[in-house]
Amino acid sequence: MTRQDGRAFDQLRPIKITTDFVKFAEGSCLIECGDTKVLCCASVEERTPPHVAEGEGWVTAEYSMLPRANRERSKRDVSKLKLSPRSAEIQRLVGRSLRAAVDMTKLGGHTVTIDCDVLQGDGGTRTASVTGGFIALCLACRKLVERGDLASSPVRHYVTGVSAGIVDDAALLDLQYSEDSRAQVDLNCIMNELGEIIELQGTGEGRAFSLTEQQELVRLCAKGNKELLNIQKQVLGGKF
Amino acid sequence: MTRQDGRAFDQLRPIKITTDFVKFAEGSCLIECGDTKVLCCASVEERTPPHVAEGEGWVTAEYSMLPRANRERSKRDVSKLKLSPRSAEIQRLVGRSLRAAVDMTKLGGHTVTIDCDVLQGDGGTRTASVTGGFIALCLACRKLVERGDLASSPVRHYVTGVSAGIVDDAALLDLQYSEDSRAQVDLNCIMNELGEIIELQGTGEGRAFSLTEQQELVRLCAKGNKELLNIQKQVLGGKF
Amino acid sequence: MTRQDGRAFDQLRPIKITTDFVKFAEGSCLIECGDTKVLCCASVEERTPPHVAEGEGWVTAEYSMLPRANRERSKRDVSKLKLSPRSAEIQRLVGRSLRAAVDMTKLGGHTVTIDCDVLQGDGGTRTASVTGGFIALCLACRKLVERGDLASSPVRHYVTGVSAGIVDDAALLDLQYSEDSRAQVDLNCIMNELGEIIELQGTGEGRAFSLTEQQELVRLCAKGNKELLNIQKQVLGGKF
Amino acid sequence: MTRQDGRAFDQLRPIKITTDFVKFAEGSCLIECGDTKVLCCASVEERTPPHVAEGEGWVTAEYSMLPRANRERSKRDVSKLKLSPRSAEIQRLVGRSLRAAVDMTKLGGHTVTIDCDVLQGDGGTRTASVTGGFIALCLACRKLVERGDLASSPVRHYVTGVSAGIVDDAALLDLQYSEDSRAQVDLNCIMNELGEIIELQGTGEGRAFSLTEQQELVRLCAKGNKELLNIQKQVLGGKF
Amino acid sequence: MTRQDGRAFDQLRPIKITTDFVKFAEGSCLIECGDTKVLCCASVEERTPPHVAEGEGWVTAEYSMLPRANRERSKRDVSKLKLSPRSAEIQRLVGRSLRAAVDMTKLGGHTVTIDCDVLQGDGGTRTASVTGGFIALCLACRKLVERGDLASSPVRHYVTGVSAGIVDDAALLDLQYSEDSRAQVDLNCIMNELGEIIELQGTGEGRAFSLTEQQELVRLCAKGNKELLNIQKQVLGGKF
Amino acid sequence: MTRQDGRAFDQLRPIKITTDFVKFAEGSCLIECGDTKVLCCASVEERTPPHVAEGEGWVTAEYSMLPRANRERSKRDVSKLKLSPRSAEIQRLVGRSLRAAVDMTKLGGHTVTIDCDVLQGDGGTRTASVTGGFIALCLACRKLVERGDLASSPVRHYVTGVSAGIVDDAALLDLQYSEDSRAQVDLNCIMNELGEIIELQGTGEGRAFSLTEQQELVRLCAKGNKELLNIQKQVLGGKF
Repeated sequence: MTRQDGRAFDQLRPIKITTDFVKFAEGSCLIECGDTKVLCCASVEERTPPHVAEGEGWVTAEYSMLPRANRERSKRDVSKLKLSPRSAEIQRLVGRSLRAAVDMTKLGGHTVTIDCDVLQGDGGTRTASVTGGFIALCLACRKLVERGDLASSPVRHYVTGVSAGIVDDAALLDLQYSEDSRAQVDLNCIMNELGEIIELQGTGEGRAFSLTEQQELVRLCAKGNKELLNIQKQVLGGKF
Repeated sequence: MTRQDGRAFDQLRPIKITTDFVKFAEGSCLIECGDTKVLCCASVEERTPPHVAEGEGWVTAEYSMLPRANRERSKRDVSKLKLSPRSAEIQRLVGRSLRAAVDMTKLGGHTVTIDCDVLQGDGGTRTASVTGGFIALCLACRKLVERGDLASSPVRHYVTGVSAGIVDDAALLDLQYSEDSRAQVDLNCIMNELGEIIELQGTGEGRAFSLTEQQELVRLCAKGNKELLNIQKQVLGGKF
Repeated sequence: MTRQDGRAFDQLRPIKITTDFVKFAEGSCLIECGDTKVLCCASVEERTPPHVAEGEGWVTAEYSMLPRANRERSKRDVSKLKLSPRSAEIQRLVGRSLRAAVDMTKLGGHTVTIDCDVLQGDGGTRTASVTGGFIALCLACRKLVERGDLASSPVRHYVTGVSAGIVDDAALLDLQYSEDSRAQVDLNCIMNELGEIIELQGTGEGRAFSLTEQQELVRLCAKGNKELLNIQKQVLGGKF
Repeated sequence: MTRQDGRAFDQLRPIKITTDFVKFAEGSCLIECGDTKVLCCASVEERTPPHVAEGEGWVTAEYSMLPRANRERSKRDVSKLKLSPRSAEIQRLVGRSLRAAVDMTKLGGHTVTIDCDVLQGDGGTRTASVTGGFIALCLACRKLVERGDLASSPVRHYVTGVSAGIVDDAALLDLQYSEDSRAQVDLNCIMNELGEIIELQGTGEGRAFSLTEQQELVRLCAKGNKELLNIQKQVLGGKF
Repeated sequence: MTRQDGRAFDQLRPIKITTDFVKFAEGSCLIECGDTKVLCCASVEERTPPHVAEGEGWVTAEYSMLPRANRERSKRDVSKLKLSPRSAEIQRLVGRSLRAAVDMTKLGGHTVTIDCDVLQGDGGTRTASVTGGFIALCLACRKLVERGDLASSPVRHYVTGVSAGIVDDAALLDLQYSEDSRAQVDLNCIMNELGEIIELQGTGEGRAFSLTEQQELVRLCAKGNKELLNIQKQVLGGKF
Repeated sequence: MTRQDGRAFDQLRPIKITTDFVKFAEGSCLIECGDTKVLCCASVEERTPPHVAEGEGWVTAEYSMLPRANRERSKRDVSKLKLSPRSAEIQRLVGRSLRAAVDMTKLGGHTVTIDCDVLQGDGGTRTASVTGGFIALCLACRKLVERGDLASSPVRHYVTGVSAGIVDDAALLDLQYSEDSRAQVDLNCIMNELGEIIELQGTGEGRAFSLTEQQELVRLCAKGNKELLNIQKQVLGGKF
C-alpha cells in the first residue's frame, strides 16, 4: 500500500519542535507533526487542588481546538456552554500521561497546567499534545529549579505518544487526517523511555481487530515512540 | 494473592441481569456485577441527528452516576452545569462499542439511545454499562421488529465488556472498587463474540506496564468476556 | 365511576417499600406506589450551608426523573444546562416537608440531603418522594445515633404525602398517570401523624373548584395519609 | 392582635394599579400592594410553542426580582447561570393561574407572555403578579381585538390572588414581609369571580395546621379576592 | 433638519429624576430621558472583591433590559444562560465611568454595586445609566456617611453622560430611538464637571467620520453634559 | 520621556504579518506587533444569521485569549461557562470595524467569521485583531472570487487600528503592556484609508482628559494607522 505522502508504513511524519514559542509560560513549545500544529504551554501556580495531599504537587492538562484548526470551522466551546466531550476525553488522557512521569512529592505545593491548543489539526493531535506537552512540562520544571523553587526536577522519565491504525487492512504508523478518517482501527499509545506502556487506547471504528493485529499496532507505536524519544532528548539537551 | 472476596484471579463477580426492569423503555435491564448495579434503558426515537446519512440509523449512549451511587455523595451534573468529564469519556466509549454492533442501514431512520444510570458503583461500571446496554439495545430492536418498524434486527454481533488490572503486581480479572482504587494498571476491553477487540483502554495508574503484561490483561479480559457472552446468550434466548 | 385498575375511589395503589436498596447511603429505600418507583437516598455531610445558624443542622432534597422514567424519553437536565422547573418546584416541596419534621438543633452541624430519583413514573412521584424520603431520612438519623454522632433522633413526627383529584367530576384518591393526565383538579397533601397539614397544593387544571370540593379532596388525602402512616410505622418498626 | 400597620386582621393593604406603565408592551400595569411593587407586562407573539395544538394559543409567565427589590441585594440569575428555583416555582404558578382564564381556541396562534418583574418586594409578590398579570393580559387581548387580530377577547373570567397566614396563632389576610417572615403558616389562594379556587398553596413553615385553620385561611383569601375583583373590574371598566 | 419631536439639534429630551424610587437600596433613582426610563439602584456591601487592595473600596455596575423594555420582547439573559454581549459592553462602561469619580481609599472596605435596569428603552440607555447611576451612587455614599460608616463622601466629582450622532449628515444631540436606529454615526461621551472626558465611544455605523465631525459631536455632548450637570446639582442639593 | 524600548513617542512597534499561517481557513494571518501575537482566521459559511436580509452577507468576529497568552494564566471561558465580558466588548468592536468595510450585497449569502485568537498579549491586542483581521478577511474574499462564488471582492476600503495613550502626562503611540498598565488615558482608533474614523474608544483610567488631549491622541493614531495602511497594502499586493 502506498501512502498519500509517500511515507513507509512505519514512518513518522516530519517532526518540528520550537521551544519557548511564547514568552510568558514557564515552559512552552510549538510541536508540528506533519501538518498538525499544537501549541503546548506549561503554567506553574503555587497552589494545588483540594484533593492533593499536603506537600505534594499536581499536573493537569487542558486541550482545545481553535475554531478553524480543521477543514470546517467549529463553534467555540464557550458558545455552546460546554466542553466538547472529545476534548474532555483527550485532556484526561494527556493529564494522566504526564502525571505518570512526575514525582509529586518533589513538585510539592505546585500545580503545573499543560495547555494544549491545536492551531492546525491533521490527525494525531492527542498524541502530539502528549509529546509536546512533555517538553513544556520539562522546561517549566527546569525554570522552577533555576528559580530555586525546587531542589531538582520532579520529572522521572520521558513520555511520548503516537498513533497507529489499520487502513485498507494494512497497519500504518502515525495516521494523518486523510488516513485517519477512513481507518478501520485506530490505536494511540503513550510510552516511557523503556518502551513500557503508560496509556493505550484502541478503537475498532470500521471493524473489530484481533489480538495479533493489536500487538502489531503496539509494535509500530513502539518504533515511533522510540524515534520521538530521540527527538525529545535532542530538544531537551539530554536532561529533564 | 488472595482476593478480598475469595475469587480466583481470573474469576468474574456474580452477574445478575434483570430484563424489563422498567416498563416504558423499549428495552431495559438492571445489570448487577457484584455490588455494581447499572440500570440500562434503550429508547427509540423516529429521527436521527443531522450528521447521519439519509436512510441510516444511529445509536448513542449516555452515562451517569446517581448522586449517592458511591461511598461519598457527589453533586449532580446539573448543579455544576456541566457533564462530568469522566462521564463524557465513558459514554463515548459505550456509544462507540454498541454502534459497532449495529448495521445502521437496517436501523434506518431510528435513533436508539442507551441510558446507563449507575444506581450503585463498586468498580467496573463502564464495562457493565456496555454489557447491560447491549441487552437493552437488543430488546429494543426486537420490539421494533415486533411492531413491524424494522424487517429484522440490525444487531450484527454480541458485545461484552470487562476490566482487568494489576494489583500488587498480580493480574486480576474484573476489579471491584477496593482493588481498583489501588490498582497499578487498569485495562478495559470490549469484545465481540469472536473474541476480537472493539475497544481497548489501558492506563498505568501507578506504574507503566510491559507489552507482555498488556497481553496477559487482554487474555484475562477475553476469558471474562467469553463468560459474559454466554450469560448474554442465555438472557436473550440465543438470538438478538 | 369505575377506575381503570378497579380500585375504589378512596383506595391507595399497592405500596411497597424496600429499605436499604443501595448500600452506601446512610439511609435509603425504593418506594413503589403502583407503577411509580422512586429511589430515595439520604446522605449525611458534616457541614451545613452558610444560611444555617451555628450549631444547627439542615435537611434538603433533590428530585430528578431518569431520562426514560416516562412514556417518552426526556433529555437530561445537564444537556439542557438547567434544572427542569418542574423538578425545582418539586424538590422545594419535598425539602420543606421533611425539614418540618426535624428538630434542627438536635441535628446540629449535619446536613441530610434526600435524593429522590424517579426510576419509573406513573403519577404521584412527588408525594411518593415525600413518603419514601421520610423513611430514608429516619434510617440515616438512626445511623447517626448508632455511630454516636447524635444523642437521639432529631425526627419529631411522621410525614406522609398523597394526591387526590377530580376526574370526570368525581373525587379520587391517589391518581395514577392515566387518571392524572385528564384530571380536572389535582391536589397534593402532606400531613403529619395527627392528620395536620404540612403542605397543600391544589391546581384547577381543567376547571376551578369550590371550597366544598377542596375539603372533600383534603379528606380523601387524610384517609390515604393515615394508611401510609401505618405502612411507615411498620417499615420503621414503630420508632423513628 | 394588632398589626404593625394598624390593619384589621382581614384587611388588604392599599392597592394601586397604574395601567400602561410602559408603552411598548401590548398590555402592562404597575401593581402596588402596600410596599410591594410589581411591573406586569404582557407581550404578544404570533407563534406558539411546539406542544400547543395547531390553531390554539398559549399563555405563559416569567417572574423575576430585580437585584435590589429586597432588604439585601441578591445576585442576578444570569450571574449564577440558573433561574432561581423560587422564581421557577412562582412563574409556574402565575402561568397556570392565567392560562386557566383563557379560551385557547379564541387566542388561536398567539402566545401571550406575562413578565412579572418585582421592583420592590414586601410580601405577596406572587399573588400580586397574578392580580396584576391578569390586568396586563386583558389589556393585551383588548389590543388584539382592536387590531382585528382576534374576533373577541379570549378571557373567560377574572383571576385574582392573595395570601393569608397564621402569625402568633392568629389568621391574617395579606401578609406583609415583616409578618410573612415570622408566619407559622402561609397560604396563597388564586380565585375566579365566583370565588372558586384556581390554585391553592399552603405551607406550614413553623408548624402544621389543622383542616379548620386551613378553611379559615381560605375564607380570608376569599374575602380579599372579592375586593381585588372589584378593583380589577374598576380598572378594566367592567369588561375584559 | 427638523427633529421628529421638534427639538433643536442641540437640545436634550426632557429629563426627570425621581430619587428614592425604591426603598431598600441605599441609594436609588428613576431617571427618565424622554421615553427612556432606567431604574438605578446603589447597593452597599461590606466586602470587596479579591483584586481590590486591602483597605480600599470598589464600585461596579450591572446593566440589564427588562424583557419588554423595547418594541420587541427579548428573552431574558438567564433563559439563554449568558449575559447579552451588549449588556456586558455597557456595564463595563458604566462601571468605569462611576469608578473614575470615587476615591477608593475613602470608600475603604465597601463595594457599591450600581444596578441599572431599563424599564423602557428609547435610545440613550447607557448614558442615562451613567447619569442616573451617579445620583444613586451619591445617595448611597451619603447614607454611609450618615450611618457613620464613612467619615466623608468618597465622591470626587460629578459624572454625566450623553450621546450625539449624525443623522442625514446632521449632527444631533441626545438621539432618541427613531433617530438612533438610522444614525450614520453614534458617539457617547461621559464627562466630569470640568467638561473633561472620562469615556468616549464613537461608532461609524453607516459611514466613517472625519476628525472635524468627531469634534463637533464631542462639543454637542459637552453642551448636553453641562445641562445634565446642572440637573444633577439640583437633585443632589449642590453637594455629593 | 524615554520609552522602555527606546521608541519615539509617535513610533509603532515592529509589525510582522505572516499570511496563510494556517492552511484550512479561507484566509488567515499571524500578526505580530512587538510581542503581541494574534492569529486571525477568516472562515466562510454559505448561510447567514436570521437578522440578515435575504441576498445579503454578514461579517462577524470572535476574540479570545489563549490561557497563557499573558503574564498570569487565566481560566478558559468554557470552564467559567461564560464569555469574558472584556472579550465580548472586544469582539463587538472588531466585528463592527470589519463590517464597515464590506459591501454586504456583494457578499450575498455568505457569512465570514473572523476568529482572533491571542497567542501572546503585550498590549494592543484589540487593534492588532482589527488590522490582522482585515488581512484575513481580504484573503478569504479573494478565495471566494477565485472559486467563482463572488463576482468581485466585497471589500470597499482598508481598515487599520492602533492605540495611543497618556503615560506620565505624555501622549504615546502604540502602548505596549508595561506602558498600558500604568496609562492615565487609553484610546483606540480604527480608521479607513482616508484617515476617517470608524471606531473610537477612549478611557480615562487614571484621570479625565481634555478635548485637546483627545485630539492629540487621535492625531497620533492617525499617523500610526497610515503606516499600518502601507503595510497592509504591501502584504495584500496593492489590491483587496
